[in-house]
Amino acid sequence: MSDWKVIEGGVTAPRGYRASGITAGLKLSGLPDLALIVSDVDAIAAGVFTTSQVRAACVDYCRQQLQAKPSAKAILCNSGQANAATGEAGWTDAVESAQALAAVLNIAPESILLASTGVIGQRIKMDALKAGIPKLVAELSETGNQAASKAIMTTDLVPKTIALETQFGDRPVRIGGICKGSGMIHPNMATMLAFVTCDAAVSPPLWQEMLTRATNRSFNQVTVDGDTSTNDSLIALANGASRTPAITAMGPEAEKLEGMLTAVCEYLAKAIARDGEGATCLIEVQVSGAEDEASASKVAKTIVGSSLVKSAIFGRDPNWGRIAAAAGRAGVHFDQNHLEIKLGDFLLMQYGQPLAFDRNAANEYLKKAPTGEYLKEDTVLISVQIGNGPGTSKAWGCDLSYDYVKINAEYTT
Amino acid sequence: MSDWKVIEGGVTAPRGYRASGITAGLKLSGLPDLALIVSDVDAIAAGVFTTSQVRAACVDYCRQQLQAKPSAKAILCNSGQANAATGEAGWTDAVESAQALAAVLNIAPESILLASTGVIGQRIKMDALKAGIPKLVAELSETGNQAASKAIMTTDLVPKTIALETQFGDRPVRIGGICKGSGMIHPNMATMLAFVTCDAAVSPPLWQEMLTRATNRSFNQVTVDGDTSTNDSLIALANGASRTPAITAMGPEAEKLEGMLTAVCEYLAKAIARDGEGATCLIEVQVSGAEDEASASKVAKTIVGSSLVKSAIFGRDPNWGRIAAAAGRAGVHFDQNHLEIKLGDFLLMQYGQPLAFDRNAANEYLKKAPTGEYLKEDTVLISVQIGNGPGTSKAWGCDLSYDYVKINAEYTT
Repeated sequence: MSDWKVIEGGVTAPRGYRASGITAGLKLSGLPDLALIVSDVDAIAAGVFTTSQVRAACVDYCRQQLQAKPSAKAILCNSGQANAATGEAGWTDAVESAQALAAVLNIAPESILLASTGVIGQRIKMDALKAGIPKLVAELSETGNQAASKAIMTTDLVPKTIALETQFGDRPVRIGGICKGSGMIHPNMATMLAFVTCDAAVSPPLWQEMLTRATNRSFNQVTVDGDTSTNDSLIALANGASRTPAITAMGPEAEKLEGMLTAVCEYLAKAIARDGEGATCLIEVQVSGAEDEASASKVAKTIVGSSLVKSAIFGRDPNWGRIAAAAGRAGVHFDQNHLEIKLGDFLLMQYGQPLAFDRNAANEYLKKAPTGEYLKEDTVLISVQIGNGPGTSKAWGCDLSYDYVKINAEYTT
Repeated sequence: MSDWKVIEGGVTAPRGYRASGITAGLKLSGLPDLALIVSDVDAIAAGVFTTSQVRAACVDYCRQQLQAKPSAKAILCNSGQANAATGEAGWTDAVESAQALAAVLNIAPESILLASTGVIGQRIKMDALKAGIPKLVAELSETGNQAASKAIMTTDLVPKTIALETQFGDRPVRIGGICKGSGMIHPNMATMLAFVTCDAAVSPPLWQEMLTRATNRSFNQVTVDGDTSTNDSLIALANGASRTPAITAMGPEAEKLEGMLTAVCEYLAKAIARDGEGATCLIEVQVSGAEDEASASKVAKTIVGSSLVKSAIFGRDPNWGRIAAAAGRAGVHFDQNHLEIKLGDFLLMQYGQPLAFDRNAANEYLKKAPTGEYLKEDTVLISVQIGNGPGTSKAWGCDLSYDYVKINAEYTT
């Protein structure tokens, strides 16, 4: 099916992109805290943002920019202060950040998109940010992916980066991405940020349409603890530097591009789940037999978000009853007599009734889960069939451990 | 406002009810496991049941009975086996349970309602249940509330019981209730069961209407871990033994009765939250300023269900950012510049922006929260105003502690 391959380089793998990441002094820790991604030419830009009513200034800023003009040349991301719940002053800081970068890059401020993560209620340290911009620009490079992917991290344990390549005719087309997850060892830090670059040429409405669908099948199907952030942002650029023909409507090449985009988003989404606070494994839930994809998605996400299921997996307990109960309360109608549940290759429940299975073997499976397709980590696979419909979906999460509680309880503001 | 008082006696406080609870041998532990509540005369019966697609046989049985005829004389509850995911055999067991009790009580099987809790996927030990019924009936008494409230427990730490009394003219009218929460030290046990008795005379549709509203303002606003059970049931009987005039439409006396019914349900709901797995305190979230009650309810329940808020409270951390973020993602539109958050008497956020407050004092408040109205336990009060609308609501939950994870992870099926 998928005729693309994984390549090195993340967001700088596609042609015509440079990136950088520096320590500007926004974080007290002295770790990198300012990242930049630049496209040499104007790129088509699409975005998906938090649906929260409590939003960071950068989220409102990006929405406004993209509504006016779906293109951009640069994405500036600070990982020191979230700039959420900061009112008018926060908005002014966002505008001034874009202006300061625009002056150094010598482009229009309208070509810049912004993202922030860090402590809610804190304004950006503007002096440090402005002072850091010349260095940030000076360090832009076609090998700057690692620096950028590290500079967007807050409490992530590992940087998260991926790139894929395919051929359109005789020319390579690439998509790359980086993201950070919601690590909340520090109070009030709870943000998913992802940046995707692509060198295909694609029309703005189609690129946004593809991004929205890809998001629904990846980031929107991930849950670490059910808490949506004030700053969640996914921005995707497509600059046409592959010099392949412009894609303006769905068709074989558009489908291939969307398949790659979805694969990049799915990889990044899984990487966030695996790096969830206190996680000891990645959980993938596959739901089939639903009436449609939306129903399957609801069931999959409800199961992977269940505290009881998550605790059971942490305890390496093949507890099918909790999986059945979570499926049942997802708000999707199905006949419980058709319910089938598998854990890895172990059939635990069929026709809505528990089966005898080898508990020791299932327990061993949970202790040493097979390797995922991209993520070379432990993956626990739960497959649930709820009927005979065509709807399928996947969702990802992680187990609920003592460390999750510890991380989120023991830090006092 | 409320001209009723708290009295002793639980479900046997209203006239014309008897109850009992025994050890029938359904539980391996030897603890009481079979409970019975009987009304001397036919009582109007209303019920609210789990919305899960995966339901216990007793839930389907009660729904069918109440649809055919909204009255009952007895409620039989076993706390050994959930009788969920047990297929046709489970249904037959439910029918035979009712028949066995009917024969000993010498009433029609159609006058009996059923409830079960325990391990999902296990059938009821019918021999033990049938053998226990004569003793269960023999022990029925007007002081049987304690025995019944203990026999419905699974892993609850305390029995939960309440009764209220008011005057209709010169005659006392009483409502009593017992319930059990979702203690899941044992795998697959996740059930809220509540039984309410009342000696007022009320028409069946009005009683069901009152019960549904009361449930929405109480049990449906409680969350321990977001997991809805296969067996959740609330059954309310009204037998008219107070010999007060029949209430057939809303009016002053109906409002008073509904107020009492809501207060009984609220008390029991709070008792479940306080006794949540691993809980160290009760959390009450009050939301005001919403467009309507439904919007306020959504925001309140989202905050009290947030793992991040729950962890922060366990850590005794006055972390307003997590409360704001949870409010923002509740799916209710509001202007973030109107957001106001209080913790006890401490104003933490106003006009959508953080305020300076005495962290040490707020921390002390969390360490020693004030006493609730009914529950003589620690209560942490979070008040959130999201605008200027008339909609208000409350929700209850508990903190997320190491013990929650321990309880749910360390038991292997």
